[in-house]
Amino acid sequence: MIKQVLIGILCGASVLTAGILIGHYGITKSNGSAPSWVKDVAKDVDENLIEKFLSEVDNIQIQENLRELTKVPHMATTAGDEQTVQFMLKRWQDPETGLDQAWREEYMVYLSFPDPKKPNKVTVVGSSDTVLYTAREKEKSYTSDQDDPEVVQPYAAYSPAGHAKGKLVYANQGKPSDYQLLNETVDLRGTIAITRYGGAGRADKAINAAPYGVIGVLVYTDPLDINDGLMSDINETYPHSWYMPPSGVERGSFNSRYGDLLTPYLAAKDETYRISTENITGIPPIPIQPIGFEDAYRLICELGGTAAPAAWHGAFNCTYNFGGPGFKPTSAFNNSEVKLDIFNHEELKNSSNVMGVIRGSVEPDRYVIYGNHRDSWVHGAIDPSSGTSVMLELTRVLGTMVKQGKWRPRRSIIFGSWGAEEFGLIGSAEYTEQYFTKLSERTVAYINVDIAVFANATLRASGMPSLQNVIFKATKQVDAPGLDSTSVYDNWIRYANRTSPAHGHIPKVGYLSGAGSDYAAFVHYLGITSMDISYTYDRSKTNARIYPAYHTAYDTFDYASMFIDPGFVSHQAIARTAGNILIRLADSLVLPLNCSDYAESLEDYLNTAVSLYQHQLQAREISMEPLKYAVASFRSAATHLDEVIRSSDLANETPLKVRRINDQLMLLDRAFLDPLAFPDKYAYRHVIWASSSAGKPTFPGLADAFANAESSGQSSDWDKVHYHLSVLSQAIEGAAHTLVDVI
Amino acid sequence: MIKQVLIGILCGASVLTAGILIGHYGITKSNGSAPSWVKDVAKDVDENLIEKFLSEVDNIQIQENLRELTKVPHMATTAGDEQTVQFMLKRWQDPETGLDQAWREEYMVYLSFPDPKKPNKVTVVGSSDTVLYTAREKEKSYTSDQDDPEVVQPYAAYSPAGHAKGKLVYANQGKPSDYQLLNETVDLRGTIAITRYGGAGRADKAINAAPYGVIGVLVYTDPLDINDGLMSDINETYPHSWYMPPSGVERGSFNSRYGDLLTPYLAAKDETYRISTENITGIPPIPIQPIGFEDAYRLICELGGTAAPAAWHGAFNCTYNFGGPGFKPTSAFNNSEVKLDIFNHEELKNSSNVMGVIRGSVEPDRYVIYGNHRDSWVHGAIDPSSGTSVMLELTRVLGTMVKQGKWRPRRSIIFGSWGAEEFGLIGSAEYTEQYFTKLSERTVAYINVDIAVFANATLRASGMPSLQNVIFKATKQVDAPGLDSTSVYDNWIRYANRTSPAHGHIPKVGYLSGAGSDYAAFVHYLGITSMDISYTYDRSKTNARIYPAYHTAYDTFDYASMFIDPGFVSHQAIARTAGNILIRLADSLVLPLNCSDYAESLEDYLNTAVSLYQHQLQAREISMEPLKYAVASFRSAATHLDEVIRSSDLANETPLKVRRINDQLMLLDRAFLDPLAFPDKYAYRHVIWASSSAGKPTFPGLADAFANAESSGQSSDWDKVHYHLSVLSQAIEGAAHTLVDVI
Repeated sequence: MIKQVLIGILCGASVLTAGILIGHYGITKSNGSAPSWVKDVAKDVDENLIEKFLSEVDNIQIQENLRELTKVPHMATTAGDEQTVQFMLKRWQDPETGLDQAWREEYMVYLSFPDPKKPNKVTVVGSSDTVLYTAREKEKSYTSDQDDPEVVQPYAAYSPAGHAKGKLVYANQGKPSDYQLLNETVDLRGTIAITRYGGAGRADKAINAAPYGVIGVLVYTDPLDINDGLMSDINETYPHSWYMPPSGVERGSFNSRYGDLLTPYLAAKDETYRISTENITGIPPIPIQPIGFEDAYRLICELGGTAAPAAWHGAFNCTYNFGGPGFKPTSAFNNSEVKLDIFNHEELKNSSNVMGVIRGSVEPDRYVIYGNHRDSWVHGAIDPSSGTSVMLELTRVLGTMVKQGKWRPRRSIIFGSWGAEEFGLIGSAEYTEQYFTKLSERTVAYINVDIAVFANATLRASGMPSLQNVIFKATKQVDAPGLDSTSVYDNWIRYANRTSPAHGHIPKVGYLSGAGSDYAAFVHYLGITSMDISYTYDRSKTNARIYPAYHTAYDTFDYASMFIDPGFVSHQAIARTAGNILIRLADSLVLPLNCSDYAESLEDYLNTAVSLYQHQLQAREISMEPLKYAVASFRSAATHLDEVIRSSDLANETPLKVRRINDQLMLLDRAFLDPLAFPDKYAYRHVIWASSSAGKPTFPGLADAFANAESSGQSSDWDKVHYHLSVLSQAIEGAAHTLVDVI
Repeated sequence: MIKQVLIGILCGASVLTAGILIGHYGITKSNGSAPSWVKDVAKDVDENLIEKFLSEVDNIQIQENLRELTKVPHMATTAGDEQTVQFMLKRWQDPETGLDQAWREEYMVYLSFPDPKKPNKVTVVGSSDTVLYTAREKEKSYTSDQDDPEVVQPYAAYSPAGHAKGKLVYANQGKPSDYQLLNETVDLRGTIAITRYGGAGRADKAINAAPYGVIGVLVYTDPLDINDGLMSDINETYPHSWYMPPSGVERGSFNSRYGDLLTPYLAAKDETYRISTENITGIPPIPIQPIGFEDAYRLICELGGTAAPAAWHGAFNCTYNFGGPGFKPTSAFNNSEVKLDIFNHEELKNSSNVMGVIRGSVEPDRYVIYGNHRDSWVHGAIDPSSGTSVMLELTRVLGTMVKQGKWRPRRSIIFGSWGAEEFGLIGSAEYTEQYFTKLSERTVAYINVDIAVFANATLRASGMPSLQNVIFKATKQVDAPGLDSTSVYDNWIRYANRTSPAHGHIPKVGYLSGAGSDYAAFVHYLGITSMDISYTYDRSKTNARIYPAYHTAYDTFDYASMFIDPGFVSHQAIARTAGNILIRLADSLVLPLNCSDYAESLEDYLNTAVSLYQHQLQAREISMEPLKYAVASFRSAATHLDEVIRSSDLANETPLKVRRINDQLMLLDRAFLDPLAFPDKYAYRHVIWASSSAGKPTFPGLADAFANAESSGQSSDWDKVHYHLSVLSQAIEGAAHTLVDVI
């Protein structure tokens, strides 16, 4: 009986098991089994992967990248530049640690160089051109790096060649107001003006001078502005500290536009139409040459005439006179003139971008772009190789995960190593011109890390307000360099903060309203949500305009590793922060872009505009109501979209719903583009972030138009204020329309 | 034993069943069951639904729509227009047959009207202004419709008010060449020119005249151009036939731009900035007035001077003389002058678009837009109410299916009933300005059906080449009106055909290069794939420029139902064709847009350009190679995308793959936009389809730039040819980049 019962139970169990197996495997469920992609499309960012990424980012790797990149000077299109191209390609094509694909893209661009055989000269000459004094033609060398024959002579790129001789005057920073004031005392016709860096754009120092009859310009860096006043290389400046030695000269592009100058709005390919060189605007109309402060000291301290205002004084231990014009009677240079012999020449040169991609798995047609320029003025350890070293470490870590099959991002990642940035953001601008439509349609965000580390005190971040949140998230997960158990975020908020109506006390993210690096074309021409980060100064410790070796022959590996970031820990923090943001942008199910934070910035701008302008506009019957209405519509649309995101179970809904929301977020900045909003500003189309000369924290076109109308008083200029208000209101309302329910 | 066996079997069976049930329902399969949306996102267009749609489209409903729409004259912004607004809203908000939602959108637009109290006058006056002859102030009435006090006096909208008196001359069509030739014989200063419609735009007849000193212009429709020569209303013209009666006058907008004239690129809202009226361009600088051919006959046949060339002659049984200037000595009008007293005035008026939507189920953020204007000059039975009647029938059939829960399109459908088209496509243009970004990002296609039926012989279709295939597919499924077992397609190919390298003998689809109807802003400003269809003439049977009652008081329900489309069967065929295309665009899994057909058109254009221009361009060292390369890249990218579509099992892959391909197809036309390509052409941005004056079947900007350079011979004009070649090559290559693998 027991046996029978056991047999019965066994049989029953077998039959039951058979049934279960048949039921489970033998019968298709009515709604079918889920296709394999259902899980893939719903996948969100993996926090473990981010942890792993953070732990793999290696400061020593960054240091070795930098050592390699700075072996030789690598000014755009030189042999040294080509070496860096090859290095990038080798790394990005490495089968173990490289990207899916990497290649170069070339453009024929218009560059300006000095002549190595006929160096530019700045001299003080007496009668019959007796040379009384000659400014240094090259910087003094302290290490073997600086003796490299490929170190380019300090020069002002795009300064015309020419010979100018005249009495010297001191014109402070070369701003319009500086020349105006100077001209009240001195007849500027036929003079040479010496100016200091700062206050005005490089080219503007010459452009502003020419209308007064000035025939040549010198520019130098005052120790007050760069060295906290220190001047001696015996014990104060590099190689004793990070400060600029007396012979150091900041090179630069004296070009106020961005992109190749001969091919506006067109990618500079071989057969592309080029405007005539006479039609180039925004470059110096008269020769200009940068010199070191040791030479400037000699010239300025000998100047005659009356004393310039206190605000014009730098750190020299002498009175900064306007100039008689010319030198003072007691000077050995009395009656002498300053002579500029400039032999710069322009050339069409082949410049390369190096491009690399990691293909997206789920949405390959969505791009997160990460870039930095590759070209430097000399060795460029900080500018730009600190950023390139960081980018290479990012691609090593991410590339290795891809090659090992451990990761593939949801969206595609494009890395760009831009060429010829120093001459005017040329490589990135040509890239955006060539691929305008594709990039406009598909780019989620652009991350720029140019100079990764200016100094090792704190993070500095600028970008569209929609990125604020993901920047915060990432910085909270990264340790601040040199501090125990303090995050980059917690450190940052001590240095730069603000009070947000929505978030309270938070770090302050700046705006990208200028064209200081390769984000310019992405922000202003394409309207792509962009950001730029770096590690930077403790402003309580230095007033330096920028790190003192900027654009000099002293920006070397030695300098970077000794004075900017010993141990490369700030580089590491930037790599971790940027990479964290990059992974979140590439992998998050819902894009980490917050439109309500954008609304907050628009409201800020609106409040400023109302308080600055409304009274005077009302008097002219120009209503600000449409602008107020537009900003309010934007706020309410943003709140609504946030609510849709919050209340949806997006991982379980059709992937087309996530895509729809992500498209709303991705394309938001595109709504602010108006190709006709700034007829006088080349390639500025973003009505919220365009550059502005009015210096008000509000809508740039409105601020400029208002300042212009206020100064001219002409009714046609007030019309332009009204016109721009309409442009702005329509753009903001148009943006709001994209955030509401799609239909 | 048997009992036991039975019990055993029963028990076993129950256990087995229990097992099956547990196995099937109790255990989740490893890859889960498919979410309900998996099927929805893969759904393709339903051919049964299209069959049902075709069968439901009712000619009698269309007829009754037309009857209702044409009850009273409904010129833009008049009370009659408001009646049609209410009618559309009522229909689209109908709970049984309406749309998901319908509303109106208003714009304050700049319109031009005659003064009902001071009608415009055209007289022949002798010395001391004795009136010898007065042209008709209104058209003769044959039906009660035409007696409606709301019938607007024939006038030239945007002609300035003013009084002009001078000797009459005959200037043919008022083309530049016409005035040039006339001026060789007659001193035109102080004259009044009479011109006939055709050859030049309405406003151009006055714009071209003014530089010669002409002070006023008349325009009439020659019976040769509209009536196949017939003139008598006793037995030849309406009400005896479709021909224009002797007093019939074509009204029109004498405005060569599109969109509201005071708010370029801005939606005309109350507070929007408006340019000063003096800054309006493209409208007549001197008074102009249209008259009937019975008056023109009296004036022209009395003219003195020498005989105009044969090509200038119309159908009048007299010699068309140039004018002495003025009348011939034998005329009763000898020495008399013609006087224009024009009392037009301009006004800001509130014009409404009526909008309606059917929400998409799967991709609500993708729009198929279908539109037509609602405003007419008088009763507007054909223009535009034939199209509106068709649109209302479409929305009735589709709306009913939606309300009954039988259908919801994959993508959203937007219907637009545009206001103030007759004054310059204003309602549609303002709409595209207001919603620029949203529409650019999301619109799959725009279908325009304005005049649905010009005549009942054959289909006429124009549009982007990518739409050719879906137009063919739809027309093969619709019966040709009045023919047994012949499709619209088979009938069409007899009237208009061409040989395609890819498809052989096919009907000819035209291009949308002008601004003849509301597609203009969609094509030229937004770069949205667009089409326009109608039923039209047998050109072997008539030479009429257009249907003869066009813009006259005779364009009534009576006229339409008697002479244009008795039985409304051509209307029905257009409704079926347009609706079929609409459903396919809204419901197809893969968008029915073919990029290889676009490549064929580009190759056509390229071949023409090479044969017309290459020789001369080579001589100037302007290479066409970049253009050839761009077109070849486009072709190869299109072939590749076609292959991807063909080889993919899209219904079973992630919906994001279909979306990606559909985005490539949807956004293709956007790649051809360049806001800087045509600096002199308002709101023309599409480099392939912009208007052109050169009259060559090739790239419009290239053709115009070449013609201009050839005629001026200036090197700066040849530079513009080179520049435009670069613009064009970059746009086409940019488009190709969007069609290749997304990464």
